[in-house]
Amino acid sequence: MPSYRIEEIAGIVGGKVEGDGSIEIHGVAGLKEAVSGEITFLANPKYESYLASTNASAVIAASGNGSFDGAVIRNDNPYLAFLKVVRLFSETPLEKYSREVHPTAIIPDNVTLGDEISIGAYVVLEDNVVVGDRTTILPLACINDGVRIGSDCLIYPHVTIREKCEVGDRVIIHSGAVIGSDGFGYAKDGKEHHKIPQIGIVRIEEDVEIGANTTIDRATTGVTLIRRGSKLDNLVQIAHNVVIGENSVVAAQAGISGSTELGKNVVLAGQAGLVGHIKVGDGAMVGAQGGVTKSIPAGTSVSGYPAREHSFARKICAATARLPDLLKEFRNLQNRVDALEKGKGSGPSAEDD
Amino acid sequence: MPSYRIEEIAGIVGGKVEGDGSIEIHGVAGLKEAVSGEITFLANPKYESYLASTNASAVIAASGNGSFDGAVIRNDNPYLAFLKVVRLFSETPLEKYSREVHPTAIIPDNVTLGDEISIGAYVVLEDNVVVGDRTTILPLACINDGVRIGSDCLIYPHVTIREKCEVGDRVIIHSGAVIGSDGFGYAKDGKEHHKIPQIGIVRIEEDVEIGANTTIDRATTGVTLIRRGSKLDNLVQIAHNVVIGENSVVAAQAGISGSTELGKNVVLAGQAGLVGHIKVGDGAMVGAQGGVTKSIPAGTSVSGYPAREHSFARKICAATARLPDLLKEFRNLQNRVDALEKGKGSGPSAEDD
Amino acid sequence: MPSYRIEEIAGIVGGKVEGDGSIEIHGVAGLKEAVSGEITFLANPKYESYLASTNASAVIAASGNGSFDGAVIRNDNPYLAFLKVVRLFSETPLEKYSREVHPTAIIPDNVTLGDEISIGAYVVLEDNVVVGDRTTILPLACINDGVRIGSDCLIYPHVTIREKCEVGDRVIIHSGAVIGSDGFGYAKDGKEHHKIPQIGIVRIEEDVEIGANTTIDRATTGVTLIRRGSKLDNLVQIAHNVVIGENSVVAAQAGISGSTELGKNVVLAGQAGLVGHIKVGDGAMVGAQGGVTKSIPAGTSVSGYPAREHSFARKICAATARLPDLLKEFRNLQNRVDALEKGKGSGPSAEDD
Repeated sequence: MPSYRIEEIAGIVGGKVEGDGSIEIHGVAGLKEAVSGEITFLANPKYESYLASTNASAVIAASGNGSFDGAVIRNDNPYLAFLKVVRLFSETPLEKYSREVHPTAIIPDNVTLGDEISIGAYVVLEDNVVVGDRTTILPLACINDGVRIGSDCLIYPHVTIREKCEVGDRVIIHSGAVIGSDGFGYAKDGKEHHKIPQIGIVRIEEDVEIGANTTIDRATTGVTLIRRGSKLDNLVQIAHNVVIGENSVVAAQAGISGSTELGKNVVLAGQAGLVGHIKVGDGAMVGAQGGVTKSIPAGTSVSGYPAREHSFARKICAATARLPDLLKEFRNLQNRVDALEKGKGSGPSAEDD
Repeated sequence: MPSYRIEEIAGIVGGKVEGDGSIEIHGVAGLKEAVSGEITFLANPKYESYLASTNASAVIAASGNGSFDGAVIRNDNPYLAFLKVVRLFSETPLEKYSREVHPTAIIPDNVTLGDEISIGAYVVLEDNVVVGDRTTILPLACINDGVRIGSDCLIYPHVTIREKCEVGDRVIIHSGAVIGSDGFGYAKDGKEHHKIPQIGIVRIEEDVEIGANTTIDRATTGVTLIRRGSKLDNLVQIAHNVVIGENSVVAAQAGISGSTELGKNVVLAGQAGLVGHIKVGDGAMVGAQGGVTKSIPAGTSVSGYPAREHSFARKICAATARLPDLLKEFRNLQNRVDALEKGKGSGPSAEDD
Repeated sequence: MPSYRIEEIAGIVGGKVEGDGSIEIHGVAGLKEAVSGEITFLANPKYESYLASTNASAVIAASGNGSFDGAVIRNDNPYLAFLKVVRLFSETPLEKYSREVHPTAIIPDNVTLGDEISIGAYVVLEDNVVVGDRTTILPLACINDGVRIGSDCLIYPHVTIREKCEVGDRVIIHSGAVIGSDGFGYAKDGKEHHKIPQIGIVRIEEDVEIGANTTIDRATTGVTLIRRGSKLDNLVQIAHNVVIGENSVVAAQAGISGSTELGKNVVLAGQAGLVGHIKVGDGAMVGAQGGVTKSIPAGTSVSGYPAREHSFARKICAATARLPDLLKEFRNLQNRVDALEKGKGSGPSAEDD
């Protein structure tokens, strides 16, 4: 693992050092996650209070934003500076995996391979596969007929990419992910289910990351589409004909049913579930375990089952906690009304009885 | 992808053409999913209204059922006709995968192979495996000791079938599925967990389909049983000693705990979860994310957590949405009763105080 | 499968036989799961009533605890005796898998292999991997750079263990599990997500079992830690920097978000979900599908979404079932109060109208 002094880092990213510039930094992390020996950053002044509790040894912050016990690099675009630091501490696949094709990899003559590729042991490429420049395919991956993979991709062990699917540049696919399995579609004649052929594909655009053991089904016809910049965590289920918009984030174990479309910058928290054939607007968010049963307008946060607008869902949630007491108080109030009614009857007009 | 004119299709399936018989059809899909260039069908007259909104270019319908802007093939068994069309557009494994055994496949002498099988690169078959006629096993699958696989099966890359498990005819198992992993069983002595050996098997009957990265645990003793015609989606969990009845459907990410039994034609929607040791009657349905804590009678639909009869669950759900307002109104009513009580006290019998 | 007569078993584990000592026993199981031909045990007198309904042919019980129609072995430590029987019926990996390295396994010169190991076909070990004595690695597993695996481990087909991760002694990892995939961490600059390098590892201590297709992410920096004796079921998601305490149990499809820490003897039921950065105290339990949004004190049971103390969650749950009726009764009570208010007005001073 590389290590840099604060003053070296300041030289690379630009900025003035406050505090001890000779501290050795071994890594980078967020304000809350950072540990001693790491550098973090403050981009948004509203998180300034976290500086008091972070365990980081150094922070990158704009002039005048926040005071900090450890070393500070003052830079007026702290986020951009931080990303430069991140890259300092990351090994790229080009450095990490040797640029060679393992002799046990199976590569038919009609496969097209780019420059500086790396293909691991027991990788199987089928007919007419295309692999872009500098792409790395790790051991035991299986790339079926006619798949096209872009440049600078990283395909981990045990990935399956089924026939004809398309993968853009700089895509990372983690171990065990299955891209292009058959969509779950049957025609039912009373009791038996007859399989409807799934003859579409999956298209993954550039800069997407797909988590371990995540499954993305091919379209019945047409395309299941993961747009550029989207990030999918582990064990996510994407059904046939789904569209994930640009720069959306889908956390672990979330599931999206057939033909549902997510806009840009959508966030699904862990274990969220969406029914099929709905639309989720740009920038919408679904809370953890949220069960979405209808379309969500852009910019809306929802949670709970069935998912409702988040602040309303929280009110319901708080109200249900008072429900056991409410039932008791209600019985009590009924008794009081009973008494009032009787009292009224036995009151001024008692002779009526 | 093949393509057929409407009049050709009518000739194959039987029926009279209304509208333009020369339209080229490239695929098939359901009424809601179909796009231009595809053919769909209307089997149930109650969906007649969907004809107005479908994007299909042609429809198969019985005489007198529904009017449609595009081409119509009139056939008195539209569903059967549609299935014939589906088959027109599907490549079978026999056509798609060459009937040969890849030289890198590992096949011990005591393995029994049927006729016209296809076995891909780096497939591992262990001792005494039996593979039926015309079955296709794709690259990098692992079939352990003594597994029996029927005829006309399709086993995708990276599938594991653990020792002694049994797979019937015409079964499809998608990539990354694990059949026969150990059931999750421990005996606890205060704090440590001692593994209980899982010495049963998984038996999958004919015409079953198992989704990508789905896991089906072997029985502690005896059999975890998936009966014929059942369809399991991706990332489903089936615990030890579960029984799935005939023609049941389990959607993605649903999970069934140990020894629970599903009847015939049961439907579990996505992310549903069932506790162990319960029975789900024939034709019962569990809604998405439903959490089933006790047995369900035949023909019943349930939803929510804990799962309740569906129409009741919906009433509860609607009622909870009114709960925040109810709390306010309740306080208001309490105040009114307070006032009445005070009013009574200060009324005709004020001298009593 | 081995088989033993009751009197043979009594001789091995110690104890006096009541009933027919000649009955043949083929297996072992819990009181509820056991079938005819199996032996079970009664360790806790409070389960004595189950003896009437168990299908086991024999039971191990302490003197004076329970009467049973079948054979009984009286032993004053019935649990310990039972574990000895369990071992009688279990084949160990040493017996089951031949102690050899398959010629197709890829093993660089710098790999360190213990004694009596077993390595299957098409296993890939990368540089500097260390494998302890008597460990079994089954076909098509991939063990990346610098991974250290202890003694007596059992690694099933299609497992991926990513670079530098550490696995203790007697660990079992089931098919398709992914150990050490990248944590899900990005820095966002308005719209794009920049990957934060995940340079930590996963450390799995001794006697852990990991289910099929479970995913455990490596730490951003530092360690994602699964402490000794913990058992994880299938399709579980463990995010970066999580800590699972000793002897904890995580059931299928549960998910734990980043940096959350579980104490000892924690139990998460199926499909439970935990947010990140919380602590779950020793011996705490989370019910099936429970959604945990904040830390849980030791010894507490929680359930529901958001997860609340279990007995309170049950009260809320029961109360919600009465909510539809409550709404009606509330309207009724409002009407009665309306009438009282009017009645008061139209009462003694009716002449005012």
